[in-house]
Amino acid sequence: MPEFVRQIPAGDTHERLVCSTCGFVDYENPKIVVGAVVAERGRVLLCRRAIEPRRGFWTLPAGFMEMGETPEEGARREAWEEAQVRLVLEGLLAVYSISRIGQVQLIYRSRFDGPPSFAAGPETEEVRLFEWEDIPWDSIAFPSVRWALDAWRAVGTGPLGAPAGNPPEDPRGTVHLPAEAAL
Amino acid sequence: MPEFVRQIPAGDTHERLVCSTCGFVDYENPKIVVGAVVAERGRVLLCRRAIEPRRGFWTLPAGFMEMGETPEEGARREAWEEAQVRLVLEGLLAVYSISRIGQVQLIYRSRFDGPPSFAAGPETEEVRLFEWEDIPWDSIAFPSVRWALDAWRAVGTGPLGAPAGNPPEDPRGTVHLPAEAAL
Ligand SMILES: [Zn+2]
Ligand SMILES: [Zn+2]
Repeated sequence: MPEFVRQIPAGDTHERLVCSTCGFVDYENPKIVVGAVVAERGRVLLCRRAIEPRRGFWTLPAGFMEMGETPEEGARREAWEEAQVRLVLEGLLAVYSISRIGQVQLIYRSRFDGPPSFAAGPETEEVRLFEWEDIPWDSIAFPSVRWALDAWRAVGTGPLGAPAGNPPEDPRGTVHLPAEAAL
Repeated sequence: MPEFVRQIPAGDTHERLVCSTCGFVDYENPKIVVGAVVAERGRVLLCRRAIEPRRGFWTLPAGFMEMGETPEEGARREAWEEAQVRLVLEGLLAVYSISRIGQVQLIYRSRFDGPPSFAAGPETEEVRLFEWEDIPWDSIAFPSVRWALDAWRAVGTGPLGAPAGNPPEDPRGTVHLPAEAAL
């Protein structure tokens, strides 16, 4: 991770976070990632990434929430973009904080809107429904994908209560895995 | 609300949202507001705003989450900045979407860390604990403050389940009140 330092960029009037490595100016506040665990009869949908970071690894359909949409709309949009899936959201499964990269992730438990139907979108190599025991744990793209799958497994199809949070081993989302980066 | 249009600002390489009224360039994604309903024996803490928007109106301690912190840390920081309160967070009470202004609000149920102690911070005129029947409903700063108070009242001191969401009358956070603006 590059180090960001606080300074006033040329032509600007406010202090910003500026990357000490390349000069990139970070005008952003923490970002919201919205995603879904899509389940169908005990199987869960995963997408193999066609893009960096973590190209070739498996992830949930998820991405950055955009202006003008609700988190739920964002989660549905991402599922469509990445996996050509039409979702019904059942509720908030988990809220994760990845403070190292300024992300809050809102992950929804969801199901197909109608018969299961999916296909790889432009940023996706392959989409599959996995039985729990077939999930490629060694090829999961990001720790929070594993967290969300565990949270889904724990709650099953029962009523959703308080959303899961970060696991005890990474309460603030600061653990840095090699070659790991933003969703 | 000003209208934003998509265009590439001078000197920039990406399309951004640019205000059609004043030319302000919005580099931001949706922002995360973190806040707390602070309760003490059935009373709730409110802050009278010393700043615009909604100066003089009552609000919860809340504000924009910053880079490098978790939502919980942000909620505690805001409570300290605005009301000089040290908080213990009990869990996520509500998640609100104010899509009109690109906000997701994470509101925590919380209590004082130790004996109740509070004071107005620089952006606050006055801090008070209100009995439910004394809450100044006509002088509440933002609709989501009312929503969060209602959510708190509904759950009481019981276990927190699934967080509350937007009320049916404003499911996407698009209702525009006169003189109302971002938290
Ligand atoms: Zn850089
Ligand atoms: Zn403007």
